[in-house]
Amino acid sequence: MTLGRPKPPPLDQHLPERLPASPGTGVAAYGATSAESGLVPLRIQRRTIGAHDVEISIDYCGVCHSDVHSTRSEWRPPKYPLVPGHEIVGRVTGVGDDVTLFDVGDLVGVGCMVDSCRNCPSCEDGLEQYCESGSVGTYGSVDREHGGEVTQGGYATSIVVDEDFCLRIPDNLDPAAAAPLLCAGITTYSPLRYFGAQTGDSVGVVGLGGLGHMAVKLAKAMGAEVTVFTTSPEKSGAARALGADRVVVSADQAAMAAAADSIDLVIDTVAARHDLVPYLRTIRRDGALVQLGLPGEDMPPIPVSALMRRRITYASSLIGGIAETQEMLDFCAEQGITAEIEPVTAQQLNAAFDRMVAGDVKYRFVLDTASLKESA
Amino acid sequence: MTLGRPKPPPLDQHLPERLPASPGTGVAAYGATSAESGLVPLRIQRRTIGAHDVEISIDYCGVCHSDVHSTRSEWRPPKYPLVPGHEIVGRVTGVGDDVTLFDVGDLVGVGCMVDSCRNCPSCEDGLEQYCESGSVGTYGSVDREHGGEVTQGGYATSIVVDEDFCLRIPDNLDPAAAAPLLCAGITTYSPLRYFGAQTGDSVGVVGLGGLGHMAVKLAKAMGAEVTVFTTSPEKSGAARALGADRVVVSADQAAMAAAADSIDLVIDTVAARHDLVPYLRTIRRDGALVQLGLPGEDMPPIPVSALMRRRITYASSLIGGIAETQEMLDFCAEQGITAEIEPVTAQQLNAAFDRMVAGDVKYRFVLDTASLKESA
Repeated sequence: MTLGRPKPPPLDQHLPERLPASPGTGVAAYGATSAESGLVPLRIQRRTIGAHDVEISIDYCGVCHSDVHSTRSEWRPPKYPLVPGHEIVGRVTGVGDDVTLFDVGDLVGVGCMVDSCRNCPSCEDGLEQYCESGSVGTYGSVDREHGGEVTQGGYATSIVVDEDFCLRIPDNLDPAAAAPLLCAGITTYSPLRYFGAQTGDSVGVVGLGGLGHMAVKLAKAMGAEVTVFTTSPEKSGAARALGADRVVVSADQAAMAAAADSIDLVIDTVAARHDLVPYLRTIRRDGALVQLGLPGEDMPPIPVSALMRRRITYASSLIGGIAETQEMLDFCAEQGITAEIEPVTAQQLNAAFDRMVAGDVKYRFVLDTASLKESA
Repeated sequence: MTLGRPKPPPLDQHLPERLPASPGTGVAAYGATSAESGLVPLRIQRRTIGAHDVEISIDYCGVCHSDVHSTRSEWRPPKYPLVPGHEIVGRVTGVGDDVTLFDVGDLVGVGCMVDSCRNCPSCEDGLEQYCESGSVGTYGSVDREHGGEVTQGGYATSIVVDEDFCLRIPDNLDPAAAAPLLCAGITTYSPLRYFGAQTGDSVGVVGLGGLGHMAVKLAKAMGAEVTVFTTSPEKSGAARALGADRVVVSADQAAMAAAADSIDLVIDTVAARHDLVPYLRTIRRDGALVQLGLPGEDMPPIPVSALMRRRITYASSLIGGIAETQEMLDFCAEQGITAEIEPVTAQQLNAAFDRMVAGDVKYRFVLDTASLKESA
């Protein structure tokens, strides 16, 4: 079923010469062949396992809003065909000669990056996401380190990745529900840590989607008191079920006024244009608002006075480094945290995209690759 | 001379019943009687010295851009008559029975606040400027602690202030040139400290006025390498004379591109609408831009991506607390730092306002009250 998306053209019109030319293995995947194609079955090449590479048989891949933006060319135009997916969990099926960190059979993950320059200040600080040459994204990025191929993501049956960009998934986490930790989890964990969320702090979460629901769980596990701001009164129960201590309906001006000056850190996960001033008013002196969504249009201006009168900072951040992502996975294992997911088959991905755009998901679709593997 | 300002109406049309009714001392002052009056000679009442008060014979008062905005009703409409001035330096001429911090003859200062609630979390943290009941401004504020009088500022021959809001001016500082430290100095010192400017850091300063020139001197004294961004190539020499290591003309796109990713902290002192993106591009990962000017209109929107891709924060802050202001004065004494000033008489204040609005001052006018005292 492809709700609201045009029917994709036949597969053989797109692929031949655009596939990577390097030797490797053809694997089954789902990806877009144009901005209008929707997701269609593809075969893509994975490179031969290099000395530092691990080959992963992908079991699950989370479905992130970025996947929709990218495949539909809503950000900068990508190269097609494009196989999205950067919340990958699977088992190691092969390791290169020099691999020391992983063995065949290990449960591992791959997040939003598969390489970086390794020697700029950001890489040396373990913050590869801010690599000064640009980190190599898991899909749609030119992989400088591997012949300039354009990377292809996790809506596929396998992937080959440098071991340094591979994460260990703790055994006690459900593999499917752990997949969204690799983007939604780390994207919220990293600013919570960077801004020092801890016991006694008050954390606000704006938006209760893939990122927002993880922010609630993680902030709660860090000991913070959590307030969810939502436009929908009916989400109140769901927010509390995730661990929220307080739910404030943002359209209720009296409730917003009552929440004034009560929060240390607002994690704003809404990726649409919205006015931040009502949320800034809820922030205490020396607090911060971290915006993690990337709206397609400019946000309304922020009056300087809204920051000045309580020394508030407005910030943003990008996923997290590899070491921090492993730290987050270990923290989640310790705290028993995973995402709330709805599994989908490859054939359901287009419908899942449309439902996600409509806000109809609690809280993350995760592709189960079993159907892809059967068809392969 | 009153450049570009209407001639003020005769004095006796305005004053009688608007003056504070409490017993006290009438003192000579210059202030506005309406948004259009310009500054005119006035007599205002100062309260009788209370147990915790010090009476100060004002020698100098810095002329801050806020004084122009306030008296001309360019921010929220003030109560008239309004005597501006919150960069006050003078000698103690009287002390209340319970005063322990100051003696008659001491060289002291008063900055932007003369009281606060004293028991909210911000006051308890020594950050009275963020007092949750609102600090009592040196002029134009309702003084809750003293009968609800509207405070009147330092364009006057004397002032009576609670000792807790009085600062000690170190002896080795020139009193006239120290006056601007009490607003321009602390307003730039506080965010430099809050964001941890230190040896090895790179600090950028946008705008080279009263605040900007102090930011250059203070950042340099803290050990930072200082870059001045200016729209005027001809300010280059002046910026270097203040201590700037580098001057970048902001209209020169090649120079701005060369400055990319080179600065840890930008102190933006421009109080007019301007695009921050070019300055954000000059900031390194984990750096910050602190905007200290309050433009009368909205700033252009800040694209989230400009913050996200290097985890940059955008912030603002308001003057500094009393303890920090004393720390700043002591730091300036240690480092031999004062403002660059041009002294003016009371009669020259209107012209000084106009020149300040035209950007024609290097870098702060300071009222010498001698002429006021003679006329009193």
